[in-house]
Formats: sequence, C-alpha cells, structure tokens
Amino acid sequence: MNVSDLRLRLSQAGQEHLLQFWNELEEAQQVELYAELQAMNFEELNVFFRKATEGFNQSSQQEKVDARMEPVPREVLGSATRDQDQLQAWESAGLLHISQNRVAVLLLAGGQGTRLGVTYPKGMYDVGLPSHKTLFQLQAERILKLQQLAEKRHGNRCTIPWYIMTSGRTMQSTEEFFARHRYFGLQKENVIFFQQGMLPAMSFDGKIILEEKSKVSMAPDGNGGLYRALAAGDIVGDMERRGVVSVHVYCVDNILVRVADPRFIGFCIQQGADCGAKVVEKTNPTEPVGVVCRVDGVYQVVEYSEISLATAQRRGPDGRLLFNAGNIANHFFTVPFLRDIVNVHEPQLQHHVAQKKIPCVDSQGQRVKPDKPNGIKMEKFVFDIFQFAKKFVVYEVLREDEFSPLKNADSQNGKDNPTTARHALMSLHHCWVLNAGGHFIDENGRRLPAIPRTGAHGQPEAVTAGVADNLKDASDDPIQCEVSPLTSYAGEGLEGLVAHREFHAPLIIDEHGVHELVKNGL
Amino acid sequence: MNVSDLRLRLSQAGQEHLLQFWNELEEAQQVELYAELQAMNFEELNVFFRKATEGFNQSSQQEKVDARMEPVPREVLGSATRDQDQLQAWESAGLLHISQNRVAVLLLAGGQGTRLGVTYPKGMYDVGLPSHKTLFQLQAERILKLQQLAEKRHGNRCTIPWYIMTSGRTMQSTEEFFARHRYFGLQKENVIFFQQGMLPAMSFDGKIILEEKSKVSMAPDGNGGLYRALAAGDIVGDMERRGVVSVHVYCVDNILVRVADPRFIGFCIQQGADCGAKVVEKTNPTEPVGVVCRVDGVYQVVEYSEISLATAQRRGPDGRLLFNAGNIANHFFTVPFLRDIVNVHEPQLQHHVAQKKIPCVDSQGQRVKPDKPNGIKMEKFVFDIFQFAKKFVVYEVLREDEFSPLKNADSQNGKDNPTTARHALMSLHHCWVLNAGGHFIDENGRRLPAIPRTGAHGQPEAVTAGVADNLKDASDDPIQCEVSPLTSYAGEGLEGLVAHREFHAPLIIDEHGVHELVKNGL
Repeated sequence: MNVSDLRLRLSQAGQEHLLQFWNELEEAQQVELYAELQAMNFEELNVFFRKATEGFNQSSQQEKVDARMEPVPREVLGSATRDQDQLQAWESAGLLHISQNRVAVLLLAGGQGTRLGVTYPKGMYDVGLPSHKTLFQLQAERILKLQQLAEKRHGNRCTIPWYIMTSGRTMQSTEEFFARHRYFGLQKENVIFFQQGMLPAMSFDGKIILEEKSKVSMAPDGNGGLYRALAAGDIVGDMERRGVVSVHVYCVDNILVRVADPRFIGFCIQQGADCGAKVVEKTNPTEPVGVVCRVDGVYQVVEYSEISLATAQRRGPDGRLLFNAGNIANHFFTVPFLRDIVNVHEPQLQHHVAQKKIPCVDSQGQRVKPDKPNGIKMEKFVFDIFQFAKKFVVYEVLREDEFSPLKNADSQNGKDNPTTARHALMSLHHCWVLNAGGHFIDENGRRLPAIPRTGAHGQPEAVTAGVADNLKDASDDPIQCEVSPLTSYAGEGLEGLVAHREFHAPLIIDEHGVHELVKNGL
Repeated sequence: MNVSDLRLRLSQAGQEHLLQFWNELEEAQQVELYAELQAMNFEELNVFFRKATEGFNQSSQQEKVDARMEPVPREVLGSATRDQDQLQAWESAGLLHISQNRVAVLLLAGGQGTRLGVTYPKGMYDVGLPSHKTLFQLQAERILKLQQLAEKRHGNRCTIPWYIMTSGRTMQSTEEFFARHRYFGLQKENVIFFQQGMLPAMSFDGKIILEEKSKVSMAPDGNGGLYRALAAGDIVGDMERRGVVSVHVYCVDNILVRVADPRFIGFCIQQGADCGAKVVEKTNPTEPVGVVCRVDGVYQVVEYSEISLATAQRRGPDGRLLFNAGNIANHFFTVPFLRDIVNVHEPQLQHHVAQKKIPCVDSQGQRVKPDKPNGIKMEKFVFDIFQFAKKFVVYEVLREDEFSPLKNADSQNGKDNPTTARHALMSLHHCWVLNAGGHFIDENGRRLPAIPRTGAHGQPEAVTAGVADNLKDASDDPIQCEVSPLTSYAGEGLEGLVAHREFHAPLIIDEHGVHELVKNGL
C-alpha cells in the first residue's frame, strides 16, 4: 500500500480527513479502506458535488419552475382510454417488432427492500398470491408469454432479452435467485445482469462522509445511474450486437407491469419516437406523484415536492388536472438514443441532491446517528434524459390495469404494500375472467356481482337487488382469482377456458388448466 | 290483553306462528310481545312483502337494466371542475336563499355504528382530530358558520333548521348528546329530531321472524324510511310553517359534508330543479359505488351490485367512464316535492329486498345463528324518489373536497375508517391554508412542500430538489392542520390569518385564533 501517495491525492482533493483514523485501524481495516479509496476518483466526485449543489440551489426556486411548466400536448399523447380505436394497430406493430427480435426489456432492480422490511432484493418478494409467485417470476413469465404471442402472430420464433440492473448490494443474491429457479424458463444467455454504481455521501461542505473509521458511507447513485452502468458494462453494445432497436425500461416493484407492452412499444414506433413515458392519470392534486410536462419547451418530470399547490390544482376546460401525466418509471427508449446518451449526454447530467440523515463518525471517531440532515446523497434519475429526446411521446394507461407498486410493508391504512399489490392483481384477473364470459358464484350457487360486495368476513355475497344503500358494506377485498402470465399476458385468450362457466373462488388459471381451490384464508 | 283477538288477526294474516311460544313466556314477556304485535299492521306487511319480492325477482334480470341505462346528459349536470366560472353565481344564489330562511338541512342518522364497532350513534364518533370534535359538532358548526356568512352577505339574520332523523335505536342517545352539548350553539327549537320506522325481518316464504320466543326481529326500514317518517312526524308541515323551500338531505357519516352547500343549492335553484343529487366522479369501473343515471328515461341510482362489468367499463370519447356519477347520499329537494312524495308517491314505493343471515329461534325455540341467508329485510332508499322529479339535476364535486365517509373501524388497508376520515379532513384544511398564502416549515425552519413527503416516522421532510425517484418515500400522512368550521366553512376567509406566515404543524385555527400545537403524536 502506498499510503503517502494516497494521502497526497486526498489532500489535493480536500478529502484528507478520510485517513484521520488510519493509525487506529487494524491492518485488515487499513487494507479495506485503502482499496476503497484507491478505487475512487476524487476530482470527479468534487465536480459532481459542485454541479449538484449548484443545481440544487437553482431548482429550489420553485415559483420559477411553476411558471415555466406546460402540460403534455394532445398530439404527443396516446391514451388507452381516449384512443381505443388505435389499440389493436399499436399492439400489432409492437408484436411485429418483438417477433423481429428488435425489443429488449430493462429492469431497474438496484433498490433493496428496506422500506418493505426485507433484506433481499424486492423482486424476490412474494406478496401472497395463491401461486406465491415472486415479482421476478411474474415478469419472467410475461416475457415468455409475449415471445409466444409474437411467434403465434407472426410465425417466427423470437427472443426478448432481459437486462437486469442490480446494485452492489443486490447483485449476488439476485443472480443466485435466478440461477436457483433456472431463469423461470428463460434462456440463461438472454438474462443479462449488470451493476449500477455507488457514490459516497458527502457533508454540506463537500467532505466525503465516513460511516466508520475504516469505511466510507456509500449509496447507489440513483436509478439514473443506469446510463453510467450501461456504459461501464457495454450493455448498449450488447443490444446493438443482438439487433435490438427498442428498449422497455421499468421498475421492479410494479406487480402489474406489462413488460415490453406491445401497445406502448407499437405506439412509440408509429410515432417515430426515440423516447417515451408511460403514465397514469393523476386525479388528486395532492397525490405524491411526479408529472411529465414541458419546462421551457423541454420534456421532464416535475417532482411532487417541486410543484406548488396552485399549479398542482390547475384544471383544463374538461375538468381534468392540467398536469395529470403521473410518472410511473415506465419508459421506452430506442437503442440509438441510448447510444447517444451513453456517449454524449450522460456525462453532462448533474446529480440531484437529497438531504439525508447520514450515520457517521465524529472527529473523535464516535458513531453518530444525526437527528437532522447532516449531508447529501447524489443521485441521477432515469427520466433525466427526456430532455435529449428528438421525438418524445407520452402513453397514458389505466392505473387499475397496469400500475400497483410494492413499496411498503403492510400497515394500517397503508398504501403500496403487499396487500394492495395482491388485491390489485386479483381484482384485475377477476375482471379478465368476467370479460371472457366467466361467472363467479357463492357457496349457495348464486352468482356474485361483477363488483363484489363483501360482508363482515370479507366473503363476497350474492347479488341482491338494490341491496342497502350503495356505499354500505362495500369493501376492497377482491374475489380471489389469479391467472398465470403463461396463460394470458393481458387478459387475452381466456374465452375458451371460462366462457359460460361458473366458478367458486379462489380460482387459479395456469398452464395446467383451470383450478378451483379450497378457500385458503388469504 | 285480548290474546284471542290478536291470535285471530295473526291467523288471518298467516302469522300465527308468532304466538307459538306464548304459553312458555313469563307474564312480562307476554305483555311485551303482545304490545309489539298489537302495534303491527300485518295486512300491510304482507303487501310490502309481496310487492318487494315481486320487484326483487324482476330486477334480478340484470342484463335488462344494463341495456336500458343512459348516462346523465350534460345539460342537467353542474360541475365544480367544469363550470368553475359559474361557482360564484351559484354560491351567491344559495346564500341569498339561505338568508331568506328558505333552506333547511335534513340529516340521515338512523344507522348505528355497528360496522364502526361502537354501540352509540355514528354522529357521536370522534375520529381523533386535534380538536376531538365529533361528526355532529362539525356539522352543527358548519350550519352556524353558514348562517353567519349568509347574514354577512345579505344583511338579515337567518336560521337553517336542522332536521335529524334517528331510529328507534338511536333516538334517545342522540337527543341526550345534543342536549348535553347545548346543541353546539344552535337554538334548541331549530334542531328537530324525528324517528324512522322499523320493519320485521321475514322468511323467504313471508313469515315474520322471531328473534327470541318473545321478541320479533326488527330492523330500520332503510334511509328511504325517511319519507314515511316525514309523514308520521308532520315534518314537511313544520317546514312549510317555517317557510322553508329547499332541503339539503345528507348522511351523517361524511366528515367533509358541506351542510346546506350554497353552491349546490344555488345551482339547483337556478336550474329550477325540484330534486338534485350531488355526486363524485367514479373513476374505477369496479369501485363499489352506485351511479346516478337514467333507466327508460327516468332518473335513478343503479347499485354497483346491479351493473355488469361491461357496462361499468364503458367510456365516453373523453376517456371518462360513461356511468361516472357516483352517488354519495347527498341530495336537494324542494318542500313542494317532498309534500308530493309524502302525500302521493311514498305509498307506491316498493321495498328493496336484502337477503340476510337473521338470528332467530327454531321451531323448538332454540336460538339459531344461520350460516347462510335465511330471510330478508325490507328497505327503501332515499333515492327511490328521483323517478318522481319534474326537473332532476346532478351536481358533480371533488371527492377530496367533499366526501370521506366513516363506515368501518380502523383495520389494515382499511377504507372509509377513522384514520382515512381524519386524514381527508386535515389534508383538505392543509390545502386551505396554503391557498390562503400560508406556509408550513419543519423543525429546522425549512419550508415543507405543498405535497408533503413523509419519512419513515411519518414526519414531513423539507423540500429537496428532485429528491429520489418520484414515488419513493411518498405517504399519505397529511400535515396536521385543522380549521374550525366556526372560522371557515369551505376555506374562505383565511387570508388575514395565514397569508405570508410560516407555521409548524400541528396547526389549529379556530374562533380563538391560530394555534401551533406541540406534536401530539397523532
């Protein structure tokens, strides 16, 4: 170890404090810290910090942003509800593209299940569906099914490569999980793992923070770390070699995600877009969701924390919120666009600043858990590159069909937790079965209403004409119904299985057929 | 007691089984049962049963209803979001009407807090607001404030009489509660209590059900029992003597209810309506809410349990649900209309049938708790009279501004419970303060975002530019803020108190001024 060399580099970068406890460390700790510091580019970090904090101080001027915001114009908007006559055409275009091996999916899975209360990657979580499939398995099976649908429609076998970005913290367990489950039926060589980078936390005056005497406080560099990771892993090169033209990027935590959604992809292609965002309508001004909009004529996502209430409450003549394109981290990019991002634009992107309470050691080397923010983490966001699109489009879909994120552990009146995710999927699949001509009946053989009432015990009750006042006894507990992605990607192809038939819940439909289970108390 | 007479009446009505345990009863029980049965009109009950069950068998033919449904036409629709330019005019018209003593409010409070898990009337419930006001108090203070606003605007003192319908089960405790709280500042003579009727539960073959050997199974006759109760108590006569022309009818459980909402009343008056319904937009096809629509050209509410999924999913060109007028039990009636209902139409209204599991005694006199429906309860609904309106209108408002019902006890992922009601009110009042120019700051004096992020501990954090991805760390916990109805009815009049000021939550604004409380762990 050439410590004096390192010390010199550190002092030139104003980071010499990182060695302040050097002489107190055991040799193993010294080796560890030395390796960690040697791998860092302090000049670069200082530049990141300077730019990020400049940006932070600018973008704090909220009023300015509000005044410059414009909604997404109708011309660049495709809507699953307002353009229903187009959906079939978009779907065909998407499936053709997929059948030509031109589509890849890219999963953002760098986050840990911290808020979910687990120590393993979120994708490995089982929300308690009748099948107990994990998020990873649901997504894998949707890819498999989509490959089949594309082949069936257009005759040629095809592959949808699956790029999975993990972080230093989730890489190993994620790869092991996939190997253990034989990639859920996908081919190993078409599931490509790569790793996003980490950055040290820094104090408000730009000093790298020590978490322990021998350890720097490190965190993933945000889901926008994607682009740097793409470069580091030559992932775009791999896409090019495979002939991939379009990439669907999404976040691991959405249990309803339509991986490589052919309608979304078809819409983007027909629009000649190089960059697109799938959104859900924001209907409540104070809903904490970022909105896609234009600022100074350039597309971006304005965070809910950056928008003023007056702007969030603005409405158009149709009564809808003016800024209602709710971002759900679900995007379309062309490979040439990603190539430009990686080669040209990414280095120019400044980091966003998140003020955090960062556990650290004080000057005496005592561990401290601050009760107010004591430093920042620097992050980039996956949507930071919208501004570089030559042709940007937005595709609006229904929340109940496509978006239910898993973020928190179950808790009273909780949102976005295992129960809400499980209910969202089963409610959707219940609708699929009804729309395919199936019916559900109760223990007395009476048909259950399409919109189930549930009694005190959460058991759906049979239709009774105009029973009670129309809000009484309503509850969210869905009829238990789960359709395997291997049987249906988005509700298609169920008529032959369910039409004119009556079922008792729980109902499972999978590659082995239609199964009515004994109530499992879920 | 003339038991043989009673026995004769019973046998003529086919209900003689009600006395099957007579000889086993102690004298006190005999007296009790005799009195209960003497008060009943068995011929009438048998007619109710026959008509109700006929109606039940008809309206079970769901497909028919679906085919006959038409949405509310735009001409009869007023919208808080689409007609913003009209709101001031409607409000003025409503306030003028109120100032002329022409408006009364009528509260449907016959229900018990059974599902809420309490033994007292719902209106006495405290959802845990900083002020710990009950639903009754919030509504009373809104009436007081509205009287002041009308006087301020138009110069003359006025009264909004408050008619409160209780049931046999809630009458006494409700009256005592109001007396104990001195009618929350209202004048005793302007708070008029009356009682809705009860009906016996009946078996599927029309036999009245005994709950115990000496006791008939009785239940309130539904919120539509209102009209019969209006007649029984000569309530419409009282309204006429007071010169009341317009009545706002609402349900006790909505914590956000705008009692005697001048905009709603003003809209109905300007439209020349004799009957109107306030609705919120139904945005999810499977939301369990009834929808106001026309069936065979006549207005009615179609229950969520009566509509097919295909119909519930239909959308207009604007992408909205075609049947999106969600009924919230919040109505406008003119007194002449109510007079016609009471004198002419009510007797023609048939009861709706609700199949229930009704505890009873078997032929051996053993108490039985059935595990499947064993009989029916007969109910009428407050909206059953829409069909008789000469001019029916619909007024659409924002859910987050006006509707958050209290129905259930707190439970994991619960809906419509004390926590959701409390959060809905505090979120709304937080918006009121921001729109009046106030700001909230955290413990470090930094301004909180208008749309609050909350950290692990539910504590709002300060704005940080574009912090983390835009769904991360979001939560519903509102900034704690409560504005007394005595200070503001619907957000008006707060500028002088909060503009350009910064506050720490929890914040209470009431008739004594503006108070910042120490965090009370709510």
